[in-house]
Amino acid sequence: MARQITLASRPAGWPTAENFALVEGETPAPTEGQLVVRNLFMSVDPYMRGRMNDVKSYVPPFRLGEPLDGGAVGEVVESRADGFAPGDLVLHGLGWRDIAVLDARHARKVTPIEGLSPSAYLGVLGMTSLTAYAGLLDVAEFKPGDAVFVSGAGAVGSIAGQIAKLKGASRVIGSAGSAEKVAHLLDLGFDAAFNYKDGPVGQQLKQAAPDGIDVYFDNVGADHLEAAISSLNQHGRVALCGAIAAYNDTTPPAAPRNLALAIGKRLTLRGFIVNDHGARMPEMVAEISGWLSEGKISFQETVVDGLDNAPEAFLGLLRGENTGKMVVRL
Amino acid sequence: MARQITLASRPAGWPTAENFALVEGETPAPTEGQLVVRNLFMSVDPYMRGRMNDVKSYVPPFRLGEPLDGGAVGEVVESRADGFAPGDLVLHGLGWRDIAVLDARHARKVTPIEGLSPSAYLGVLGMTSLTAYAGLLDVAEFKPGDAVFVSGAGAVGSIAGQIAKLKGASRVIGSAGSAEKVAHLLDLGFDAAFNYKDGPVGQQLKQAAPDGIDVYFDNVGADHLEAAISSLNQHGRVALCGAIAAYNDTTPPAAPRNLALAIGKRLTLRGFIVNDHGARMPEMVAEISGWLSEGKISFQETVVDGLDNAPEAFLGLLRGENTGKMVVRL
Repeated sequence: MARQITLASRPAGWPTAENFALVEGETPAPTEGQLVVRNLFMSVDPYMRGRMNDVKSYVPPFRLGEPLDGGAVGEVVESRADGFAPGDLVLHGLGWRDIAVLDARHARKVTPIEGLSPSAYLGVLGMTSLTAYAGLLDVAEFKPGDAVFVSGAGAVGSIAGQIAKLKGASRVIGSAGSAEKVAHLLDLGFDAAFNYKDGPVGQQLKQAAPDGIDVYFDNVGADHLEAAISSLNQHGRVALCGAIAAYNDTTPPAAPRNLALAIGKRLTLRGFIVNDHGARMPEMVAEISGWLSEGKISFQETVVDGLDNAPEAFLGLLRGENTGKMVVRL
Repeated sequence: MARQITLASRPAGWPTAENFALVEGETPAPTEGQLVVRNLFMSVDPYMRGRMNDVKSYVPPFRLGEPLDGGAVGEVVESRADGFAPGDLVLHGLGWRDIAVLDARHARKVTPIEGLSPSAYLGVLGMTSLTAYAGLLDVAEFKPGDAVFVSGAGAVGSIAGQIAKLKGASRVIGSAGSAEKVAHLLDLGFDAAFNYKDGPVGQQLKQAAPDGIDVYFDNVGADHLEAAISSLNQHGRVALCGAIAAYNDTTPPAAPRNLALAIGKRLTLRGFIVNDHGARMPEMVAEISGWLSEGKISFQETVVDGLDNAPEAFLGLLRGENTGKMVVRL
């Protein structure tokens, strides 16, 4: 018997525990080419909120009554595929369950790293850092000397800000939703950080970046994007990564209202999803691993225990209760 | 004695005739390296509205009590510069006056073309077409097969749509503010066109482009931009050229409210101003001249007579009373 979390109902606005169900069932026998994996850690990510709606997007919506999915790392317990053996550590896309049965071609074998939890492959050496890396370097075309603003600097944003500093940003500014998170960003080496609940974002950003910004890494949208457009210098660039401010809104945000400024300032705003940037993965892992071993980059994880607590972990993430990458230990 | 139009006061919202003054004065004698030019035609353009406000932008604001300026074409009547002689036709930036005295390095000699009014250098062979050409090809990165939507298709937009058709667009859709202008766009070869006053832009665009659009050439902003974001296909591109909907608003438009869609659709929105794209001018003039002589591209001018009518021409432009490029004959 194995357990999995299914989508019991679709949320309207903020999701609740009732939208999820814990279901027990038989584990299907693996067929030729498949693996049975005992999951060790699963990821909860803001983008999953979008998949709970029944709308076409860049990933298909979750289906009612079916198990959710998402990034997970686990140990092979049975292999019917060449190149995989019991005991191998693999990264794959069937989270939200204790035991995953999947085609080996959908799994990537990863090496356990001394001193790092396997959960690192969901965060600092995984999708979290790839999002930061590709968003900053490819999408926002960061170059040394740029002043960078990262909003809602959680898992992705705290890495993006540190990469910018390591690559020669003139100034890195972050925003977060609590005094504790703001202090954490300053600990990480951000030049300035502010709590967006303390006052209008536009005013706080202007104080933190009196000479303006050149790059904006957007995880929030709405008032943050409007503030960034006001503060962006000529030829500024925006990586549109997330819009967590709007994910649970049932009415669309009336912002940014100043997008016409993008004309005279020659701004570029570009949306992206990390799936398009897999080619950057080896370079990112090599560079970040180096910084980790030299102690030049820091990351935090918020670890929640137990599959039955995974829905609550996800809801906490949407409420901003995590510091750094949120994972569930299974 | 020569006449010029000065900025008498700054408008709040829609400008009126009272914001302008017709002033007579002595023409200064030209110094070494200067030309005296009798203006034949001057341009009125939407971007001039922004210069009437006292805010920093990509071009400095007009100064109170000082003459306005802008594109003009005229005939040299006196030259103190090498390479220029009386009778030469020149393009320069000192419009809004009968007689211009300027450094020769700020003038560009142009060749009179058989069958074309000199005003063509302000429009179809000038800034109007360069804006369309650079916006479509460089900023929106148009490629053959793209479906293109051009909003507020006046002087720039009607050229942009025709260039798109000539270069292999799968479909070109335009919007305009009257039934007459819509009919004109269809005459020019647009596949579909609608009057944005007839109903919600989003609905009309979806009907005109049931398979979506790949490129959006934005002259309007606000509801048009919101509609385009909804209709844009994956990897769609937006050239932000103008936001005429907002130029005279004292409150910012509460749109687009759907910019977060740019993430999953991987959209790129890019603001530009034509001044950055001067390098494209020779190629544009060559290509458009060829199309003109083959009868493959059409353009219209609305010509207003007399410097004293220039403010009214500009106000009419903002109200959309022109068809095609608006110029004043001096």
